[in-house]
This record gives sequence, structure tokens and C-alpha cells, in this order.
Amino acid sequence: MDAISPADIDTAASRIEGVAVRTPLIRSPLLDERVGARVFLKAETLQRMGSFKFRGAFNRCAAIPPEGRKAGVVAYSSGNHAQGVAAAAKLLGMPAVIVMPADAPRPKRERTAALGAEVVLYDRAREDRAAIAREIAERRGAVIVPPFDDPMVIAGQGTIGREIVEDLSALGLSPDVVVVGCSGGGLAAGISLAIKTAVPGADLYTAEPEGFDDMARSFVTGHRERNAQMSGTICDALMSNTPGELTFPIARRLIGKGVTASDAEVEAAVAFAWRELKLVVEPGGAIGLAALLSGRPEVKGKTVVAILSGGNVDPDLFSRIIAA
Amino acid sequence: MDAISPADIDTAASRIEGVAVRTPLIRSPLLDERVGARVFLKAETLQRMGSFKFRGAFNRCAAIPPEGRKAGVVAYSSGNHAQGVAAAAKLLGMPAVIVMPADAPRPKRERTAALGAEVVLYDRAREDRAAIAREIAERRGAVIVPPFDDPMVIAGQGTIGREIVEDLSALGLSPDVVVVGCSGGGLAAGISLAIKTAVPGADLYTAEPEGFDDMARSFVTGHRERNAQMSGTICDALMSNTPGELTFPIARRLIGKGVTASDAEVEAAVAFAWRELKLVVEPGGAIGLAALLSGRPEVKGKTVVAILSGGNVDPDLFSRIIAA
Repeated sequence: MDAISPADIDTAASRIEGVAVRTPLIRSPLLDERVGARVFLKAETLQRMGSFKFRGAFNRCAAIPPEGRKAGVVAYSSGNHAQGVAAAAKLLGMPAVIVMPADAPRPKRERTAALGAEVVLYDRAREDRAAIAREIAERRGAVIVPPFDDPMVIAGQGTIGREIVEDLSALGLSPDVVVVGCSGGGLAAGISLAIKTAVPGADLYTAEPEGFDDMARSFVTGHRERNAQMSGTICDALMSNTPGELTFPIARRLIGKGVTASDAEVEAAVAFAWRELKLVVEPGGAIGLAALLSGRPEVKGKTVVAILSGGNVDPDLFSRIIAA
Repeated sequence: MDAISPADIDTAASRIEGVAVRTPLIRSPLLDERVGARVFLKAETLQRMGSFKFRGAFNRCAAIPPEGRKAGVVAYSSGNHAQGVAAAAKLLGMPAVIVMPADAPRPKRERTAALGAEVVLYDRAREDRAAIAREIAERRGAVIVPPFDDPMVIAGQGTIGREIVEDLSALGLSPDVVVVGCSGGGLAAGISLAIKTAVPGADLYTAEPEGFDDMARSFVTGHRERNAQMSGTICDALMSNTPGELTFPIARRLIGKGVTASDAEVEAAVAFAWRELKLVVEPGGAIGLAALLSGRPEVKGKTVVAILSGGNVDPDLFSRIIAA
């Protein structure tokens, strides 16, 4: 039994309606030409707080009954999930505590704090962020919003797949191939469930950074494999060490195969998106586009969707990439 | 009598259908909050070649009968219009000559040449680009595609207004206020005709750089005024010296009022679009957004549309703006 059912995604879609941005499927004749396919980019870069994370976070937070909301929510993240949870809690009038590493970039701390969240710093080398979050949640009676391994978070991300199917259908199309960036697998699990429910014949692929392809290797062995290292890719959003307990069985059954892209290919995709698509995409958010532009998977002549999952990138890094 | 009628815009819409990108109206909850209105951004940054110019260029080129196409087209521009014309001609299998200043940035020349256009350089200080273009056109029997003062170019840009009305209508809305960036006035004339035909009560404004508000001053005096200088704004796309002969009467009757934004306000808008909207917008393309973010015009509580007219910006300039 999967952690979630298609009905959970429908429920999530109702919860986020009018709150999350219904992001467009963006087309580019030049991209079509380059890839040799009909390519649609689901621009979650245009989502609230610049990444898809708001969907799952809002779905989880909004499911907390009114009497439980006063105690608020707790999350641990230094990246997009932190901002997604902080924004969701703010909209729902709930307090939020975000546990972040003490060495997280100051702008990320400030952005999270600006949303009204309480930022608790920890020492990345000595302390366990999950334990800190648990301790805070227990003391306050607050709910932990995990970054991916949670049924309602997965269902929230699944709304992306639902919108893809609906919007393509309005154009008289359905997806042949969908490429989903993958870290813990929340996005991959949610989207695959939504797409395969509506279009059983669609072919899905995870996309991961080279050397961080724990999901793809887990597909092969059937067990949740680990990456050899915890850092060392430009895709800072895609460094989760192993597939989630809940996300893996779904992704394995409905996706089952993955592609990778090198840092150089990801940088080229970020630069391509800037120069030709006029979209700001962070490295981790461009992994699917990077794979497609590098010919993986083979999609000639097909209707293909890639998710641009986020656009929160440091200006110095971005400037370096677009200057190259 | 105006240079074009609403029916010309309908014809243009048929011509560009399936060739031009039907660009999305992009929303941002954060932008709505900042402006205090329901703001829609018509993202012509996502158009072919990164600006709205492709529409008018394709409409003009496609109107040339088959027997006239072999002689091709001629245009003078160092910017977005050059690329629009080159791309339109390429799609129609026509030769194109683009007259560009010899000191135009090398990437712009290369991009234009990469589209198969012949680039003819001239000396900005000594030579008259219009005369050079006329001479080439006469010698070859080619058609000149002017940047704005041409009925079919105006009608092509007008398709943007048509799409705005249609897409808002699908959401049960209609525009209260539309802010259109303005240089020679092709975009302003075309859009205003499309919008006012469908929504007579809509309130339109041109947006121009401070010191380059020839259109706004012409609205006041009723005559085509000139700017005091030919350079000196960050909005390189908006330095036309005076309103067009054909565009002015239309814009005067249907728009009639303008706002301006300073270079600092434009830079802030480009940075805002990068940081919060994840969109790449060139300075001239952000003039309407800059005005709105600066409180001009007053739009509280209204349904407002601004055109993001282009996204072709030099990487060094962009890096400087987003670092600030």
C-alpha cells in the first residue's frame, strides 16, 4: 500500500487552490528545436517563494485542525523547504520554527525570519537537526513538517502532476515523457502518482546530479541506496542522502528509471534558461532540463515535460554561470 | 482615420498563430501585495527571440506575397527588432538584411547572423541607417520592415492586447488598467487598439524613462515632441526620439496619459523580477513594472496588466543589477 492515494492529491489540490500559484507550462520553439521534441516546462520557479516546496508545506499545515494550529509547526531546512513552510504557516496564522544550520547564508536566514518564522540555529558538525526539531515540537505540541517523507507533503507536490495533465489535456495533448528532479523523492513520488493515474502509459524518469543518484541506483537494486558523499554538487537542493521510506516504493513502482546530469551540464542549462528562456532557475531546479539538453532520456518527437522546480539562487553564483 | 483597424489585429492573430508563442499572463502573490492590486504580467520575455518584436515582424513579413518573398526584407536596428525580423524571415524562408551600427555589441551581431541574416554595418556618427536601408531595399526590390511606424507591425504588436483580453476573460476578469512601455509607440498603439475595442472602459498608460518621455509630453501638447537627448538611460530599447507618425494619433486617442520611471526605479524592478518573480527582464522591458512598483499610476484594488516587453540584457549589466 502506498503512503498516499490519488484522492489525497485531489484533496491537496482543493486545499491549495487560490493560495498556491497555478504555474504555467512554458514553451520555447528554440528548446523544442534543441531537444527535437515538444517540450513543456512546468515553471515552479514562479511558485510562491520560488519553488514547488510551498505546495506540500501548505497542504500539511492546512490539514492541522484549528485547535492544533496555535502550537504551530517546526521544520528543518536551510533552503526552499524552510521558506515554503514559513510562508504556509504565515498564511494560516500559525507560528513556525525553522531549524537552520548556523552557517546558512545570511539572506536565507533573513528571508525566513522576514516571513515571521522563528529561526533556531544549530551546529552542523556537532548537532542533529532532526533531534532538535523533535525536541522543539514535543515541548510546544507543534507539528513537524518533514521535507519529503510525509503523505501530505507528497500529496501537495502531486498537485503539480495533476496540473500538468489538465493543462496538456486542454491543448489536446498528454505527456509521453516526464522528467522529475529528485532528492528525497517527494516531488517524484507525488508527480508520478498523479501522472500515472491519469496517463498510465506515460514514461517517467528521475533526474539527479552525477554522484548523487541514490534514487536511480535504488531503482536498480530495489533497496534504498546511499550516496558516497554528502556534498560536492552545484545542486545544493538535491543532496538528500537516500530516498525516503515513503517516497521510494511509489517512485520505484511508477518511475523505476533515472537519468543524471553533471555539474557542467547543469550550469549550461541554467545559462540556457537565462539566455534563451529568460527564466531564473537554480542549479537543482534545472537538473531535468540539463538532462534533456544533454540527450537523456531519448525523447525525439515526443511530448515531454520537465519540472523547473526552483529558482532561488545566490546572485554571485548566478552571475558566474551566465558570464561563462 | 487610424493606420489600422481592429480587424487588422484579428488578421495578425491568425498569421502568428502557432508560430509566435502565446505568452502567459504571470501572477505573483508577492507582487499583488506590493502593488496593492491584482497584477498580471504579460511575459513577452518568453516570446521568440526574447521580446514582443517578433510579432510585428512576422506579421509584416508573412503579408508579403509569395512572389515578393525572394527579394527578402531589410531592417535597421541593433536590438530586439533586428532579431525579430531575422527570425521571422528565417521561418518564412526569406533573405533578410539587417543594418546595424558598427559598434553594436558583438553578441547581438552574432545572434542576428546566426539566424541567417546578412548584417550590414554602418558608422553611427557619419551615416544615416534609414538611407542605407532604403538604398539596399531599392537595389534588391526588398521590403523594409520598420521598427514601429508601419500598419502591419502595429497590428502584430496588437495581438498582445487581444491575448490579454482573452486570457483575462477566461478568468472572469477584464483589465481596469494597462501599463505599456513606449519608445516609438508600436506596442502602445497596437495594444491600446486591441484593448479599447474589447474593453472601452480600460484605462491605459504609456511608461517611459525619465527624460525620454516624448510620448507623454506629446499627449499634453498634442504635437509630436522630441527628447532633449538621444542617449543616457539604462533602457536602451526605449530611446526612440519622437513618437511615430502612425502610432501617435492612435496612442493619443486611446491612451492619452503616461507615467515615467527613473533608471534607479528600473534597476530595482529588474532586480525584483530576478529575485522575487524569477524572470529575466531587460531594463526597457521592465519600465511598466518599475512604474507600478513605484506607485505610478495609482491602481489600488484594480485588475492591472503590465507588459514585460523583453528580456535581452547584457550579462555584465544584469550581474551588476542583481548584486546591488
